[in-house]
Amino acid sequence: MPEPTPVTFLGLGNMGHALASTALAAGHPITVWNRTPSRTTGLAEQGATPAPTPAEAVAATDLTLVCLLTDETVAEVLAPVAESGALKGKTLVNVTNSTPEQARQRASWAQAQGATYLDGGIMAIPQLIGTPHSYIYYSGDEQAFTTHRPLLARFGDPRYVGTDPGLASLYDMALLTGMYGLFTGAAQALALIRSAGLPTTDFAEQLQQFLIGMTAAPAAWGKSLDADTHATAVSTIAVNHAALPNLLATHRDQGLPVDLLTGLQPLLDRAIAEGHATDGLSRLAELLTR
Amino acid sequence: MPEPTPVTFLGLGNMGHALASTALAAGHPITVWNRTPSRTTGLAEQGATPAPTPAEAVAATDLTLVCLLTDETVAEVLAPVAESGALKGKTLVNVTNSTPEQARQRASWAQAQGATYLDGGIMAIPQLIGTPHSYIYYSGDEQAFTTHRPLLARFGDPRYVGTDPGLASLYDMALLTGMYGLFTGAAQALALIRSAGLPTTDFAEQLQQFLIGMTAAPAAWGKSLDADTHATAVSTIAVNHAALPNLLATHRDQGLPVDLLTGLQPLLDRAIAEGHATDGLSRLAELLTR
Repeated sequence: MPEPTPVTFLGLGNMGHALASTALAAGHPITVWNRTPSRTTGLAEQGATPAPTPAEAVAATDLTLVCLLTDETVAEVLAPVAESGALKGKTLVNVTNSTPEQARQRASWAQAQGATYLDGGIMAIPQLIGTPHSYIYYSGDEQAFTTHRPLLARFGDPRYVGTDPGLASLYDMALLTGMYGLFTGAAQALALIRSAGLPTTDFAEQLQQFLIGMTAAPAAWGKSLDADTHATAVSTIAVNHAALPNLLATHRDQGLPVDLLTGLQPLLDRAIAEGHATDGLSRLAELLTR
Repeated sequence: MPEPTPVTFLGLGNMGHALASTALAAGHPITVWNRTPSRTTGLAEQGATPAPTPAEAVAATDLTLVCLLTDETVAEVLAPVAESGALKGKTLVNVTNSTPEQARQRASWAQAQGATYLDGGIMAIPQLIGTPHSYIYYSGDEQAFTTHRPLLARFGDPRYVGTDPGLASLYDMALLTGMYGLFTGAAQALALIRSAGLPTTDFAEQLQQFLIGMTAAPAAWGKSLDADTHATAVSTIAVNHAALPNLLATHRDQGLPVDLLTGLQPLLDRAIAEGHATDGLSRLAELLTR
């Protein structure tokens, strides 16, 4: 086993703290910086070295893990580090939530400062960091990923998705998009039951079982999209196009807003108008990208 | 075991045919009618009695199962039956897709004709009828449900949800609402991956695993709604409110329409404006019904 790499952590919010304490527990010498210095106290008691400024923190090790609130915060925190010249020759792993475009621009900026850049998209809540339920997408410099894989594997299963630094964020955002669809539909479904004055506790569990079964449908759409063949015998565009107005009428009859659902109607209308009545719903993803 | 009840089936589309052949296979004497008479041939060869008109079909047995395309079709098909007086004293079980309001009006109309009315919402595709993967919500006349439960149990697990005839449809529609949320999010997620020129087959399977895990969140919202306590330590309104703009920006940057997602933004805005920043997303369902 190689000696655990020294690593610097910028940002000790819930997620940054979980990452830093996981690295510390795994035997990595760590240097920590946080805007509110009191957040470093607990880690320092366990052996971490607090740094008074981001520049001193970055200068302390070859590898810095950045976990801040937004890309704007990253820009603010790293600007004086760049000015001090401390980024030159260093490796940055940036797991701050950002868009693919922000990640690409951050990578270009870091490279201009002489740093190597790897972007990460964390698919776990802080409580799951370091457990088998955590995985993290990475994209950007492949050599940096390979070199630091032993450390990155401590946080969760590391999944390298490509050299374009925006891809980790793109995968992250795509999963979150699916999650928001699920959450939106569930909130509207529970509202419908509640609108009739009914309790929702049991229904919510029935809904979960139903939705788990239904995830099999979009799981198969990926293949349909890659093959660009959307024909189906089961749940056609035509069947769904016929069913949706009843669904919207039900919500309206119960006095509920339908904003969360109405976007689907014009997309189904378009699918019908363009001759896809007998296709399956994978066609909708294809239409969105056309 | 009691003798299997004779039963009439109006409508032999894919679903009606699956119900009729399940009853026939279970030993029930069945009478069948369909607008296109050729659909009765296969069942007749297996012992079903085809009827030339809906009125003759309904007159042949005490119990009629109605499975037509829409509530409008039900009105058309049953009008001459009512005129002939054949509905008096009969029991109708209507599993045609309809809104709760349509089901309530259909029940009132049937009662005015002297019939007993039970509404059903089938939570299965035709291929699953008669398997352990099928269940059907029923609402309306409880006595009719209890009497005919042995037959109804042949089709799938029968779940009686109340005397209001609209409730079976309401539960059905609520589950479908959740499903459309899931499908909408998944279509948009796959479109995002595809917009970067990436293959979607593997991603769609990762998405499925991610979403299965995420169903645990809304499964707990039912209890939060019943207790009207939405506080959470995990995924607050504030966190989601901060994350959503990045998500929308990502889709826009990739050239995708965001109509399917934008409905969530004003709802999160409203939750923040009304002071629910530290609540969980069960609050959204509560806001929808306020």
